[in-house]
Amino acid sequence: MTHRETPDIIVSRLPVYLRALSHMQAQGKQTTSSQELGQQVGISAAQIRKDLSQFGEFGKQGTGYDIGFLTGKLREILKVDRVWDVAVVGMGDMGHAIARYQGFTDRGFRVSMVFDSEKTKIGEKIGNFIVQDSREIVNAVRKAGIKVAMLCVPAPFAQQVANQLVEAGVRAILNYAPINLSVPNGVWVQYLDPSVGLQRMTYYL
Amino acid sequence: MTHRETPDIIVSRLPVYLRALSHMQAQGKQTTSSQELGQQVGISAAQIRKDLSQFGEFGKQGTGYDIGFLTGKLREILKVDRVWDVAVVGMGDMGHAIARYQGFTDRGFRVSMVFDSEKTKIGEKIGNFIVQDSREIVNAVRKAGIKVAMLCVPAPFAQQVANQLVEAGVRAILNYAPINLSVPNGVWVQYLDPSVGLQRMTYYL
Repeated sequence: MTHRETPDIIVSRLPVYLRALSHMQAQGKQTTSSQELGQQVGISAAQIRKDLSQFGEFGKQGTGYDIGFLTGKLREILKVDRVWDVAVVGMGDMGHAIARYQGFTDRGFRVSMVFDSEKTKIGEKIGNFIVQDSREIVNAVRKAGIKVAMLCVPAPFAQQVANQLVEAGVRAILNYAPINLSVPNGVWVQYLDPSVGLQRMTYYL
Repeated sequence: MTHRETPDIIVSRLPVYLRALSHMQAQGKQTTSSQELGQQVGISAAQIRKDLSQFGEFGKQGTGYDIGFLTGKLREILKVDRVWDVAVVGMGDMGHAIARYQGFTDRGFRVSMVFDSEKTKIGEKIGNFIVQDSREIVNAVRKAGIKVAMLCVPAPFAQQVANQLVEAGVRAILNYAPINLSVPNGVWVQYLDPSVGLQRMTYYL
């Protein structure tokens, strides 16, 4: 069972399956089918079966998927059967919201330090965190062994902060700044840009 | 030139091209190449040429793309050569951040009304907006002819609010709630779930 050749488009759907299965589990359901899961996530049952078959045989003919088992397997595959500490940089409105966001619970992540470069913000308490000076990113993030970060600084500062994060050993950056980042091989970036999300839809209107 | 058959995966890349081109334009650049654009966005030059060729002949052999022209064309294709009014529902931390977000400027969107269901929030001023009662969504959104909405309510309320938005005539919903929505044909949903973005990356770590 090698994951190396799995297309990224399949990887991108796994967290969506996991989210839907976790909701089912929270509702007390024990089993599901690719049809039911497909309806929940808007993806065909055949596609779901094909995607999951990349990683093993998780379903049984006739009885479908055991939700607890499949959820555990997906957590393992996505490496969120542990908790990743996350550094958040940029304590504007969006960074504030993320530092206080409760939605990471049980999904594999925990914000563990927050940074800003503005003197007026450094030392401020946001949620459970004291805002640290961005100049400390490299030292503090490296020392804590943090591999995951969220970037909430304005676009003109994003590349420079990304460079610091990479230097600190970060390998996965979720970027809220509306700008493409350049990072070395072995570092991943995902973008959360609301305008991009909206434009993908207005195309169809 | 029909867009009907363009695969959604191509559509999903156009806003990313537009964003990069707009940055180049802001920096005073006049022309670019598929190679240069590709480096900016992390997509191969060949893929970019193929994607754009779905919509017409925008580049010239040898001289590349006129950035102003291509930007204008992409805006037209994505229907953001106009400004869409957007309703935002849910004035928690995330909704707050969005109501005050400056990043929609020049990208085709303008937040025009905000809603919450909590009595303590209704009537509050956030950014330039007075928070309206969520019970008014159907009337207010329909009356204003709003077609685009952002959903920032907690997951357990998201489907119910989505139903109201659809009833009000909304056809594009950007969903920040970490839950899949069920909507009728002809209504589009995009998801901005930070945990999904992070999980797509931890897979590779």
